[in-house]
Amino acid sequence: MKRFLDLDDLTDDRLQAVLRRAAALERAPITDDLRGKTIGLLFMNPSLRTLASMQAGAQQLGGSTFVITPGQGSWTLETRDSVVMDGDAVEHVREAIPVLAQYADALGVRCFAKGKDLDEDLADGLIRQMADLCPKPFINLESALAHPCQALADWKTLEDLDVPRHGGRFVLSWAYHPKALALAVPTAALTMAARRGMDVTVLHPEGYDLPDPVLGKARALAASSGGSVTVSHDRRQALDGAHVVYCKSWGAPQHYGRPDDEAVLRRELRDWCVQESWFGPARPDARFMHCLPVRRNVKVADEVLDGPRSVVVQQAGNRLHAQKALMIELLTEGGA
Amino acid sequence: MKRFLDLDDLTDDRLQAVLRRAAALERAPITDDLRGKTIGLLFMNPSLRTLASMQAGAQQLGGSTFVITPGQGSWTLETRDSVVMDGDAVEHVREAIPVLAQYADALGVRCFAKGKDLDEDLADGLIRQMADLCPKPFINLESALAHPCQALADWKTLEDLDVPRHGGRFVLSWAYHPKALALAVPTAALTMAARRGMDVTVLHPEGYDLPDPVLGKARALAASSGGSVTVSHDRRQALDGAHVVYCKSWGAPQHYGRPDDEAVLRRELRDWCVQESWFGPARPDARFMHCLPVRRNVKVADEVLDGPRSVVVQQAGNRLHAQKALMIELLTEGGA
Amino acid sequence: MKRFLDLDDLTDDRLQAVLRRAAALERAPITDDLRGKTIGLLFMNPSLRTLASMQAGAQQLGGSTFVITPGQGSWTLETRDSVVMDGDAVEHVREAIPVLAQYADALGVRCFAKGKDLDEDLADGLIRQMADLCPKPFINLESALAHPCQALADWKTLEDLDVPRHGGRFVLSWAYHPKALALAVPTAALTMAARRGMDVTVLHPEGYDLPDPVLGKARALAASSGGSVTVSHDRRQALDGAHVVYCKSWGAPQHYGRPDDEAVLRRELRDWCVQESWFGPARPDARFMHCLPVRRNVKVADEVLDGPRSVVVQQAGNRLHAQKALMIELLTEGGA
Repeated sequence: MKRFLDLDDLTDDRLQAVLRRAAALERAPITDDLRGKTIGLLFMNPSLRTLASMQAGAQQLGGSTFVITPGQGSWTLETRDSVVMDGDAVEHVREAIPVLAQYADALGVRCFAKGKDLDEDLADGLIRQMADLCPKPFINLESALAHPCQALADWKTLEDLDVPRHGGRFVLSWAYHPKALALAVPTAALTMAARRGMDVTVLHPEGYDLPDPVLGKARALAASSGGSVTVSHDRRQALDGAHVVYCKSWGAPQHYGRPDDEAVLRRELRDWCVQESWFGPARPDARFMHCLPVRRNVKVADEVLDGPRSVVVQQAGNRLHAQKALMIELLTEGGA
Repeated sequence: MKRFLDLDDLTDDRLQAVLRRAAALERAPITDDLRGKTIGLLFMNPSLRTLASMQAGAQQLGGSTFVITPGQGSWTLETRDSVVMDGDAVEHVREAIPVLAQYADALGVRCFAKGKDLDEDLADGLIRQMADLCPKPFINLESALAHPCQALADWKTLEDLDVPRHGGRFVLSWAYHPKALALAVPTAALTMAARRGMDVTVLHPEGYDLPDPVLGKARALAASSGGSVTVSHDRRQALDGAHVVYCKSWGAPQHYGRPDDEAVLRRELRDWCVQESWFGPARPDARFMHCLPVRRNVKVADEVLDGPRSVVVQQAGNRLHAQKALMIELLTEGGA
Repeated sequence: MKRFLDLDDLTDDRLQAVLRRAAALERAPITDDLRGKTIGLLFMNPSLRTLASMQAGAQQLGGSTFVITPGQGSWTLETRDSVVMDGDAVEHVREAIPVLAQYADALGVRCFAKGKDLDEDLADGLIRQMADLCPKPFINLESALAHPCQALADWKTLEDLDVPRHGGRFVLSWAYHPKALALAVPTAALTMAARRGMDVTVLHPEGYDLPDPVLGKARALAASSGGSVTVSHDRRQALDGAHVVYCKSWGAPQHYGRPDDEAVLRRELRDWCVQESWFGPARPDARFMHCLPVRRNVKVADEVLDGPRSVVVQQAGNRLHAQKALMIELLTEGGA
């Protein structure tokens, strides 16, 4: 395995091996697996966790990194093929990716959804195009439809918390946010949970149905793993017996690319801010998960984030361990 | 000692030990004290010296760093508690600090004064809040009221120059600047000089009295160390017999948070630009100090900065040595 | 040799030694020549290749780097002497360069042409001023008139491709670009090719004659090396028997600093976009070179960039090897 575009790129065996290695690296974080190796990081969008943990992780394995941020110290990049580049973008990814790949032993790239055309973002073509341009190992650091490093870290978090694979009840709950957000994280969380064999409920207000290809993929994974995927608009029903509430906002697919139309639907939904009271029907020890960053008292109340249910900081900590294990998997003989 | 929020966090013994180690590191800069260790650096404000010297310093000790700059490649951060985050800020420091701390062996944070409310900035609460959120060693890289890495470097510079502790005459002189600047550096320089036992004169135009808590702290330190603190508006008198003139601008505390009102007072004070002629009453070998960055021919004339009195580049050089010694103090058994 | 401001700073012997070492480093990229050494990188303008390859290169040699980007996380820098700094710039290079030099074992600096005054940019004074302020080895990462790291990489690329030194036909062709660009790269490519002993043709539309000092220097180098320098406005004639077409845009020197006037001349020249059909009179295996970034279908057509003639990615790859060899030359006993 030389590219990690989505969790699918890891077979069940390799996924378990990566998770075991992540746990081992949590206990003994300093190795020299990446001695003499450089990881090139290209961030076309902002980052805190990924930016910090990829650098720290490579360094803790004896390697090093460089960071390129187009438009902030580096040239703005064009991504469309066959275009006449007489606008703002100065360089094309068709040059930038192969060039950076020559300086590095692997590339990690973040490129968010454009948010204009639902089908285009569902196809997640740009990250694949960039991976195809890269002759070295390639890591998706969040694309239009995938965030597999987050999914890997979240899987490890569920293991750490002893949330059962079979019979574990996982609720992916929509939450209010001032803007229509992308589908990458809800898709990543949903498909991860389904593949892990859990009973997954997608909870959201009317109008926020996840697109069919996303739900379809999750259902297929659940069918293989012995899990299930259900959709609900009823909060009490959805949280009944829940082990985990994973909170995330996303834009209404029916208004994709038309934020003004979507805002009309959205503005009535401010009460979709997770409160402690939501957890009434859940298991007493139910956990609150979120990939971060999170807007406090908009998506979730302080009482939840600051209370004992919240494992958001642990999730972020697992980004480090999971990504270190992944880099070893992609870059060394000890992996694969 | 696991956090360095102000020079107070070092006892006299440990302060001397850090200064001795800084001098040793100046002679032999390459060690492996930080082998396998990562320092996370969070810059909520611009930097040149701190940004470069923290990275170079960690690397020279065999360690590594990562840099997070909110709003420039990373998410904008909210710092206020209990707020509804429906504005520009995407992430709260209550998540960001614990998350980054998991990726690092220590955090260094820069967060300048907000400059709105004098009492709030005098309380220097934000840096303490962030340190409290950090379970790892924590270094203040300049806060609302403190710049202890600068103070440590300045102390070393005074030692290097053989400026006497007792009987050394240290003038902290206000200077003109187009904007009302923060109190962190004047407070750091004043309290450092007072603690070192020097006879300190604070020279400034009328209306620019340092706040009582700042002067009070300096006087208490001077009382313990055998030094003194005097305030003067008379340049000739203040510089009489001076060993050092430490130049810094700050806003008039009486107009704190109201820059338009302050500008009326300030615009008459353009002659507070340090000239060679100021040094007439000083010792012939009197030194000019400034923390940098400095606006040439606004705060100080080229003739002074380019002349033999100026030790501003040496001061900045000592940032490296002092911070390396401090990191060893905070992060290793060899420290503490 | 302790500073590398232009290719002239390397004698023929040392240039050949650096190229040999670059080739050796391409085969065996990991060494510890820079163990314990830090390279400070100051970017006053955007970069992708230089930013990434300097960091990766230093790391692959066992060293490390820090990056300072004025205006983006660091203070804006003043470069003019004797100025009253009451405008936007917060710090002067007269402080910034010596300060950064204390934290590093060498500095690399990028500072593009100001594009206001032709004579000023032809004098290339700012990079020299900064080198003079730096007591450590100093590397020009592209200045007003020079891009010697690019020239070194391009020389290596020509060697890799077995383009003959004597009798090799090298065409430097102007190309359309929406803006009037600087003279650094055309000057670097022209003087490199002339020094290498090739028969060089400068091809450009009327009004785009390179300034006399640039052409004069190239002709003097050609006279020493046994090469030649010719100017042509005739594409077919210029490309006749060419081994290499090196494409670059530059502003019309006669309208230097007056982009609106220049735009009138320029807007008729959109057909100066390199097409496959241009290569009719060239050698069948003629190569296309460009320093990157390049605007696709503006300066050069996709068919050329994506075809077998293009060596632009290899050129960029050679930046890494050439700069690593250069750092060893400047920083170690094994060099010089």
